[in-house]
Amino acid sequence: MDAAVYHGPGDVRIESVPDPEIEEPTDAIVRITHTAICGSDLWPYRGQSDREAGSRIGHEPMGIVEEVGDDVRHVRPGDRVLAPFSISCGECEFCRKGLHTSCVNGDGWSGANGGAQGERVRAPTADGTLVRVPERYADDEDTLEALLPLTDVMCTGHHAAVSAGVEAGDTAVVVGDGAVGLCGVLAASRLGAERVVAVGHHEDRLEIAEEFGATETVASRGEDAVEEVRELTYGGANHVLECVGAESSMSTAFDVARPGGTVGYVGVPAGVEEAEFLGTAFSKNVTLRGGVAPVRAYVDDLMADVLQGTLDPSPIFTKTVGLDGVPEGYEAMDEREAVKVLVKP
Amino acid sequence: MDAAVYHGPGDVRIESVPDPEIEEPTDAIVRITHTAICGSDLWPYRGQSDREAGSRIGHEPMGIVEEVGDDVRHVRPGDRVLAPFSISCGECEFCRKGLHTSCVNGDGWSGANGGAQGERVRAPTADGTLVRVPERYADDEDTLEALLPLTDVMCTGHHAAVSAGVEAGDTAVVVGDGAVGLCGVLAASRLGAERVVAVGHHEDRLEIAEEFGATETVASRGEDAVEEVRELTYGGANHVLECVGAESSMSTAFDVARPGGTVGYVGVPAGVEEAEFLGTAFSKNVTLRGGVAPVRAYVDDLMADVLQGTLDPSPIFTKTVGLDGVPEGYEAMDEREAVKVLVKP
Repeated sequence: MDAAVYHGPGDVRIESVPDPEIEEPTDAIVRITHTAICGSDLWPYRGQSDREAGSRIGHEPMGIVEEVGDDVRHVRPGDRVLAPFSISCGECEFCRKGLHTSCVNGDGWSGANGGAQGERVRAPTADGTLVRVPERYADDEDTLEALLPLTDVMCTGHHAAVSAGVEAGDTAVVVGDGAVGLCGVLAASRLGAERVVAVGHHEDRLEIAEEFGATETVASRGEDAVEEVRELTYGGANHVLECVGAESSMSTAFDVARPGGTVGYVGVPAGVEEAEFLGTAFSKNVTLRGGVAPVRAYVDDLMADVLQGTLDPSPIFTKTVGLDGVPEGYEAMDEREAVKVLVKP
Repeated sequence: MDAAVYHGPGDVRIESVPDPEIEEPTDAIVRITHTAICGSDLWPYRGQSDREAGSRIGHEPMGIVEEVGDDVRHVRPGDRVLAPFSISCGECEFCRKGLHTSCVNGDGWSGANGGAQGERVRAPTADGTLVRVPERYADDEDTLEALLPLTDVMCTGHHAAVSAGVEAGDTAVVVGDGAVGLCGVLAASRLGAERVVAVGHHEDRLEIAEEFGATETVASRGEDAVEEVRELTYGGANHVLECVGAESSMSTAFDVARPGGTVGYVGVPAGVEEAEFLGTAFSKNVTLRGGVAPVRAYVDDLMADVLQGTLDPSPIFTKTVGLDGVPEGYEAMDEREAVKVLVKP
């Protein structure tokens, strides 16, 4: 079969790789029908993080179950499924607690499990990892495209909002206008925030933010952005979503937080080497809560909303490619020509 | 009058300074009867933080009100009072919220208000800042020495425990065996923690930790300490109190936290330049909560416990000096010969 393989910075190729096979009785094989390119796939692509040359890539799988191991109960061949970026058993202390990213039996896509940008993946602990799309919606293309972001970015944005403690009537500030930031806006609105201030650098993305419920947008940078947000929030917001993971965005998040407030952060810390934000956090008693999103804990609730038509993150997909178009998709995201690329192998 | 004056690293002198005067109708003048030297006073003393040469120092005042401005209602001359290290108005958004350290009208001791290591201080916004000791206990020396730590370290340790979410039956880990760490142990025990693991480097201090309720102590360092705590807690604790503020102690705190747990931190971040702990926090979804302790919010509750005889942090005072002995007190703390020095001007 064909799959995307990472060879080094700027070099992702579609190559022939071995077909996955059932290795454990708890495995399933899924034929990928929809997947995506993630902002975090861009780090190795940009040389900002290490990744083994020759490794498969991608972690947002949706598809059709082709085969299941003897012990698999929840899915059967023919089911339309999606899976979070992290594999989880559903049975350990942390899975039961809703912290599936700390599953003691789990792992990520790629490595032994294959990357999701390919024709097929092996899904370990399939009962815990795979989420069935109800049959009624299993072939509705619009629904599937609205569901796909639940594999990562929509649940990640939601985790930022939940971690920041957003509740009905609140004012929330979202730092970052990438796919996760936009989903953070959508999540904060969904949780009932009365005001959602989106902070970003790209007019086209801030337009999507407005579509997603941002009541105000701030396009300035650095100190100017901080001043603007502070003015809009009369001195800072109690709920700030940090959706980038850079040193500057962490600083901005803490600078715009109100004393006693909370920064919900979900941007993988990349290049946050200096802990300058910590002094701000300390002096204002601003809590830092969040981390890698336990997508599996959120996907059922968010799927219910998508299926009833009240949640649709699919506008983040501004470009669609086939499997052969994956390298072009990376390029488009790298050059910020696309917010997020949908891949249909 | 005489007061301690900071002249540079290793150089604190007792000098004649102007008597404080009522400047605002909301001021009070307090004659200091008890005060202390704080671990944070040691930073400039050790040259680890900047401080203006010639500035007064000390921020843990207890004494007798000598004079009040026309608008002061809650205290009168003759009252025994203590005051948190931060001055607060008691009326603004943040004071009403229990975040007195973010008081919009407040400030710290020293600077315009004078340092607490001296014969007298001017207490601004006296109604918000000063806490009366009930008359019945106002001249009981043992009670006063047990109350003095409520000006800072006891409430700071309590803030760590509250921020870490310690509740009855919990297992808590306390990183640091300074006065604040020891008070953190006491606070966690007071909140009902079933197990309190104290991590420190000094056997004599860990003995006080045991007296304060530590069920286990860990005296090893670095990776060994982390391994030991993880073993004791079957993989990490949900509630970790970070009571130092150094880069290594922050790392230890996050390393011993259980996925999904919380680090309550109160050690002023000193030299935490690298945010390595952030990667650990992110991958395990460990929350960082806390900051500079809003002492004023806690002092009433903790005072009630001291007065009823169920709380006594005074064993942290391992040395007592008069005002003239302040320079010697700094030396003793600098050389770790004393945990904390009580000063009786």
